[in-house]
Amino acid sequence: MFTGLSAFPLTPVSEQGIKEYEFIGLVEHLAEAGVDSIGVLGSTGNYAYLSHAERARVVKLSVENAAGVPIVAGIGALRTRDVLANAESAQEAGASGVLLAPVSYQKLTDDEVFDLYATVCQSLSVPLCVYDNPGTTHFEFSDELHGRIAQLPQVRSIKIPPVNSDIQAATKRVARLRKLIPSDVTIGISGDAAAATGLNAGCDAWYSVIGGIYPKAALAIIRAAQAGDATTAQQLSEQLEPLWALYREYGGSLRVAATIAEVTGRVSQPCLPQPLQTLQGGDRKRVEQVLEHLELD
Amino acid sequence: MFTGLSAFPLTPVSEQGIKEYEFIGLVEHLAEAGVDSIGVLGSTGNYAYLSHAERARVVKLSVENAAGVPIVAGIGALRTRDVLANAESAQEAGASGVLLAPVSYQKLTDDEVFDLYATVCQSLSVPLCVYDNPGTTHFEFSDELHGRIAQLPQVRSIKIPPVNSDIQAATKRVARLRKLIPSDVTIGISGDAAAATGLNAGCDAWYSVIGGIYPKAALAIIRAAQAGDATTAQQLSEQLEPLWALYREYGGSLRVAATIAEVTGRVSQPCLPQPLQTLQGGDRKRVEQVLEHLELD
Repeated sequence: MFTGLSAFPLTPVSEQGIKEYEFIGLVEHLAEAGVDSIGVLGSTGNYAYLSHAERARVVKLSVENAAGVPIVAGIGALRTRDVLANAESAQEAGASGVLLAPVSYQKLTDDEVFDLYATVCQSLSVPLCVYDNPGTTHFEFSDELHGRIAQLPQVRSIKIPPVNSDIQAATKRVARLRKLIPSDVTIGISGDAAAATGLNAGCDAWYSVIGGIYPKAALAIIRAAQAGDATTAQQLSEQLEPLWALYREYGGSLRVAATIAEVTGRVSQPCLPQPLQTLQGGDRKRVEQVLEHLELD
Repeated sequence: MFTGLSAFPLTPVSEQGIKEYEFIGLVEHLAEAGVDSIGVLGSTGNYAYLSHAERARVVKLSVENAAGVPIVAGIGALRTRDVLANAESAQEAGASGVLLAPVSYQKLTDDEVFDLYATVCQSLSVPLCVYDNPGTTHFEFSDELHGRIAQLPQVRSIKIPPVNSDIQAATKRVARLRKLIPSDVTIGISGDAAAATGLNAGCDAWYSVIGGIYPKAALAIIRAAQAGDATTAQQLSEQLEPLWALYREYGGSLRVAATIAEVTGRVSQPCLPQPLQTLQGGDRKRVEQVLEHLELD
């Protein structure tokens, strides 16, 4: 399950709750496109902003509408108690795996993070992907800590932050981590702009934001990389450079992805939980222009 | 209310809930010492880790046991919807003021933060203190943004991060901010090690962690500063340098304060919500040695 394209859909919301019909539409679109798994309640799915009940509902809706595509559900929370509750309801709702980031308010220590994973793994019957996303969690994993956590029997994948754009540096980075983890633990790349390089450098999976909106474009990149055609994978990614530029300019992928979903009519506006806002005015225009230029579907 | 010593108690918890009896003891101790206000559910009070119901309960318990000392309650949350719910229950429970930090998972923009404060202020009948704590919120206020937010009628104080230890630089910093905000908005210093300098530089309040455990020591510093005796304020703070050194060494004040509360029997162990842990082993010994040396009460 933790190989290939894992597509991360948004969770469109109003201030009253989940826009369920629109969310189901996003999930169905991904299942039809043939993604390898669907990662609900990732950072793109705004897991950190939703209540426990809303999160349980999102997992249930996605399992019911994914036509058998495995659902990986984000269970992260500031407090271990809440992570355990999310893990239980995700499993009850039929998630095939879970994704856990060490979310922080107070900066966490390595021992605290290890104990979090160890505690959660004891209550899991499905496999877990370690979600290494320092941009939002403000926790920096050392490779040594990744190695310790990866020994926990439920851990089967590590979602790593963007690799260096130099393929040799990226290959060394993936190989270094690989040496420290069991052979049945996969490594997945995140950060869409770095995905082709990450896959060409030996990553087994792509945890993808753009794959949650334009799965065909993401599948074309990953299938090329999986077939050993590194050049095509890289070229296809470079064609999407105007999109990666928007991510860089607007502080990450979330607001860009949510704005795309709004302007293409996939979700109604506003789709983000306040205080978060999609791009407006001239910024929104720029997104529209990039989409016109790229002609994705 | 947003002047003088605002003492921030811990919220001792188990994985099952608030340790209410111990929390009441902490609040009573502060009220008896004569602090000017009590800041419950600050970062020290672990607001971000508690449920809405637990937070409402903490405010109620503190109002009931503070013997008339004003209660300022932290209402921050990732989502505006949850901030509004916290504001409502804090007011219902009798809080005299609220404290709001722009907590983030996705990095926030200036406009998002302004809109958060504007939305929350519309629903408030008590005054608000803007909580500027980039170390935990990962949001950096510009002075210009502080100026805009401080125009909102409910805003009556800004809790600023540690100032430069050089008194002239600190005085300039406080004066620069003062120029941009209405005259009835106070400026309070946080970061205990910087408090004497901040107060001597013109801050009106000290939002204090150590004041939540050793209110007499904190009161001695602030009363000296308020009386214009900058030298004594600075000397009293310097006597506590071994404590400030522990804060620096252990990533901030929370784990040190919680360890102090445990080793002095104010709270039972463990008192922090998992995954957070108090200091153990040799680190705990060091805290005990510092306490022996300082002889605080």
